[in-house]
Amino acid sequence: MNLGLIPAKWAALTPQRTALIDIPHQRRINWADLDTRVRRLANGLRALGLRSGDRVAVLSRNSIEYQELYFAVGRAGLVLLPLNWRLSTDALRTLVTDAEPAVLVASAEFRNVASELGRAVDLVSLLYYGPTEDGSYEELIASAPDSEPPWCEQVRDTDPYFILYTGGTTGMAKGVVHSHRSAAAGMLNQTVAERIVPSDVYLLTGQMFHIPVVLSMNYLAHGCPVVLMNFDAQQALAVIEQERVSAFLGITTMLNWMLAVPGFDSYDLSSLRNIQYGGGPMPSAVVRAVAEAFPCGLIQGYGQTEGTTMSFLSQEDHRDALRGVHPHRLRSCGREGFGTRIRVVDPNGHEVPRDGKTPGEIVVRSEANMLGYFRRPELTAATLQNGWMRTGDVATWDHDRYLYIVDRLKDMIISGGEKIYSIEVEEAIGRHPAVLECAVIGVPDERWGESVKAFVVLKPDQKATEEDILDVARKHLASYQKPRSVEFIAELPKAPTGKLLKRALRAPYWADKDIP
Amino acid sequence: MNLGLIPAKWAALTPQRTALIDIPHQRRINWADLDTRVRRLANGLRALGLRSGDRVAVLSRNSIEYQELYFAVGRAGLVLLPLNWRLSTDALRTLVTDAEPAVLVASAEFRNVASELGRAVDLVSLLYYGPTEDGSYEELIASAPDSEPPWCEQVRDTDPYFILYTGGTTGMAKGVVHSHRSAAAGMLNQTVAERIVPSDVYLLTGQMFHIPVVLSMNYLAHGCPVVLMNFDAQQALAVIEQERVSAFLGITTMLNWMLAVPGFDSYDLSSLRNIQYGGGPMPSAVVRAVAEAFPCGLIQGYGQTEGTTMSFLSQEDHRDALRGVHPHRLRSCGREGFGTRIRVVDPNGHEVPRDGKTPGEIVVRSEANMLGYFRRPELTAATLQNGWMRTGDVATWDHDRYLYIVDRLKDMIISGGEKIYSIEVEEAIGRHPAVLECAVIGVPDERWGESVKAFVVLKPDQKATEEDILDVARKHLASYQKPRSVEFIAELPKAPTGKLLKRALRAPYWADKDIP
Repeated sequence: MNLGLIPAKWAALTPQRTALIDIPHQRRINWADLDTRVRRLANGLRALGLRSGDRVAVLSRNSIEYQELYFAVGRAGLVLLPLNWRLSTDALRTLVTDAEPAVLVASAEFRNVASELGRAVDLVSLLYYGPTEDGSYEELIASAPDSEPPWCEQVRDTDPYFILYTGGTTGMAKGVVHSHRSAAAGMLNQTVAERIVPSDVYLLTGQMFHIPVVLSMNYLAHGCPVVLMNFDAQQALAVIEQERVSAFLGITTMLNWMLAVPGFDSYDLSSLRNIQYGGGPMPSAVVRAVAEAFPCGLIQGYGQTEGTTMSFLSQEDHRDALRGVHPHRLRSCGREGFGTRIRVVDPNGHEVPRDGKTPGEIVVRSEANMLGYFRRPELTAATLQNGWMRTGDVATWDHDRYLYIVDRLKDMIISGGEKIYSIEVEEAIGRHPAVLECAVIGVPDERWGESVKAFVVLKPDQKATEEDILDVARKHLASYQKPRSVEFIAELPKAPTGKLLKRALRAPYWADKDIP
Repeated sequence: MNLGLIPAKWAALTPQRTALIDIPHQRRINWADLDTRVRRLANGLRALGLRSGDRVAVLSRNSIEYQELYFAVGRAGLVLLPLNWRLSTDALRTLVTDAEPAVLVASAEFRNVASELGRAVDLVSLLYYGPTEDGSYEELIASAPDSEPPWCEQVRDTDPYFILYTGGTTGMAKGVVHSHRSAAAGMLNQTVAERIVPSDVYLLTGQMFHIPVVLSMNYLAHGCPVVLMNFDAQQALAVIEQERVSAFLGITTMLNWMLAVPGFDSYDLSSLRNIQYGGGPMPSAVVRAVAEAFPCGLIQGYGQTEGTTMSFLSQEDHRDALRGVHPHRLRSCGREGFGTRIRVVDPNGHEVPRDGKTPGEIVVRSEANMLGYFRRPELTAATLQNGWMRTGDVATWDHDRYLYIVDRLKDMIISGGEKIYSIEVEEAIGRHPAVLECAVIGVPDERWGESVKAFVVLKPDQKATEEDILDVARKHLASYQKPRSVEFIAELPKAPTGKLLKRALRAPYWADKDIP
């Protein structure tokens, strides 16, 4: 299946139905018009002299044009390279130097960065769109024929379709390559988890350079409209009411913000059927608050850019846990998805006991696994082994194969030969009533290899000393797990998605050393 | 995806949950036991000396063993050859001579036929199961190790998985070869159409040598129990109540029989969520009766052995049509499924107008299309052309791409250069109040090439002459469409599935000629 053909299908079946609703630009486009523009765009890109497999980079916030590019590159046998516009120009320069796109498409807003990137890489063309653009993107579409792009037929579903870079903040960024097949397999898992019906309307809360774009792509594959926005909690509630949104993906922070919107109860959210959340387990209290506030089912997804969503805590799991059956499962990220096999293994590849206690690494077998890392054969070989993908995530699993994430493998601290899972230490420190949040890392220690260091953010107007924190840690942890030092800071370094960046905490300590 | 791994997945996730419920033999088996038996069976079959791609034939009514064989051959890299036990021994001999199975597995009931077939083909082994068996099937399972069959890893999903013979009654039978991939693609279409939930329970009403076995396989892929029976209307109602069945496939005759069961209203059918029906459009009156009698959604599927289910008239289509929105769509077999592209084309391959009037041949593009016909490269090449499969079915389509089957291409009559669709003539004759049912064929005609002949079954205690029939035909048809002759018969030749066998009507007239 060439995913670029999605608009062809729905232009045939429901040409007048809305495909995309672009909230920031107050536009909408139906399937017939979208398909015509996608065909023209595909022909136009090839007319620039591009060959199958060439990369087309995009630097833009969510927009109709962005989605057009996803479809057009598939239709033209090209590969999309969505760029994270939140990165610095230096970081982006590193990415495009690695990925060597032949074309860069940017919205007018990113004109300066785009033209800088254009100097770093040998582009065939640099195209712009947006309200203050030079008209080049629209000219390309207008000048190209609307005939079916012939290259579409030559695309095998195992050919690369898009490359998403991860780990971009450290200069160690790697390009995760997905094929039409792997993306479609991720979408199938979502279809089964979300039980999509034709009347669904999906709200894309994230940015289209992140892997959850596969979720919105899946709703489009079902012919359901997707609403594009740049997330704002109050606006999200208004959009759900106005567009009768039935499903969206909410990370913890987003859901907390939405719950805190003044007049929350005045929004009509009755159209919602499903909220999926992810990016690590959500505190049970938040899950309960969300379940009470939103009139719909909840799904937790656990995934990675490399494998899209791999496990799900289903609607039924939530329903049971919330009414007291296996309530601890609210802390689990669920079980393997429909087309996925998951094992939790020790360093020798043997399954660890399913006792809910013994940690191991999550490994995944699935057609949704990435093809590999772009131009990184050794890293690819270290990650994809005998058909299984190493996730680098440490988890326990229980008798029924529910997964409990313990840590990122690379966040695990080894001190005096003992493995210390930072999440356990963080949970202990979090019990102190003055602590808002904390992060625990390993820092170099000549005697022990690494020692435990805690960064603590206190609640406003609350106080605690290093000794207070060590006291609570001592009370709940083994001696070897206890922090050697505590540092109070104003806030933890986080990505704009709300994801904690431990790398940034670790960097100063490990600058002249091999990061373990 | 190797479909033989389905029990491995659910033995891991829900080992104690029932996988199969065998009504005739009053047995049930859970996933853990099923998976162990499947692994042993796969190892046992290979231990007989079989190589990847070798065929394993089955001659049996629906049973747990039958489903075990479907899974075990996948797990062992072998190919299943389900035989239609309703065929004559001569017809079966033709099939096995063509397909050359290495092993034949039969239930005790078919011991005589099986041993005759064993003489026609060079078998490595002939295994029996069932209450009066020789124990050979169980011995094979008991003697083999329960380790994971290593051949499973070597199976590519485009490898052949099973062969279903069609057209078996004429000696022109052809083996339709499906791969793991094509079967899985058909299952995906079903997943989207049926919107399966974990609590579903599926009742297999048909026989496992027919393509709807893919529907029950799909429920198994979702971890849902499948109930096996040999269809009986009264028993089906009792089983739905007793096993809390949520979905089944009902052909028109089955549904009519079920509606006619005395005390229909006394059965608790509240567990039903979906009834799918197929095998040609069902008279609107029957659809309405079914919708009123059964408390669930209706789906019509149109399919072929070669492509599994290709189009669907959805739950929403039924709901709309039954409440008066596009009510004529109850005569349609719906629109292309999730992973399917459908076109209706003229003999030059150009789409016919979407006017609901102009007939053309349905052609289908889908990953669910068969690999081809076994050892029939020319027939395969004539059927699969440039990625599209010719169905041989003639249909019109409307502006919204709803399909209306007009005829089988081979049932179309050409008389004096004019195309005559037998269904149109049959509908005209059916307007005579004394006609119960009729079938129209073309017979050789020296002047016109073919001429129209009608076979008519009258209602009990009713009378009509040939002239009465011709009168009603004249009234509703063009002159060239009118039958040249009418023959009254007691009943029409039908397959046990209720499907009309026009071949049987045509045979005497075309015995010494090329069938057009």
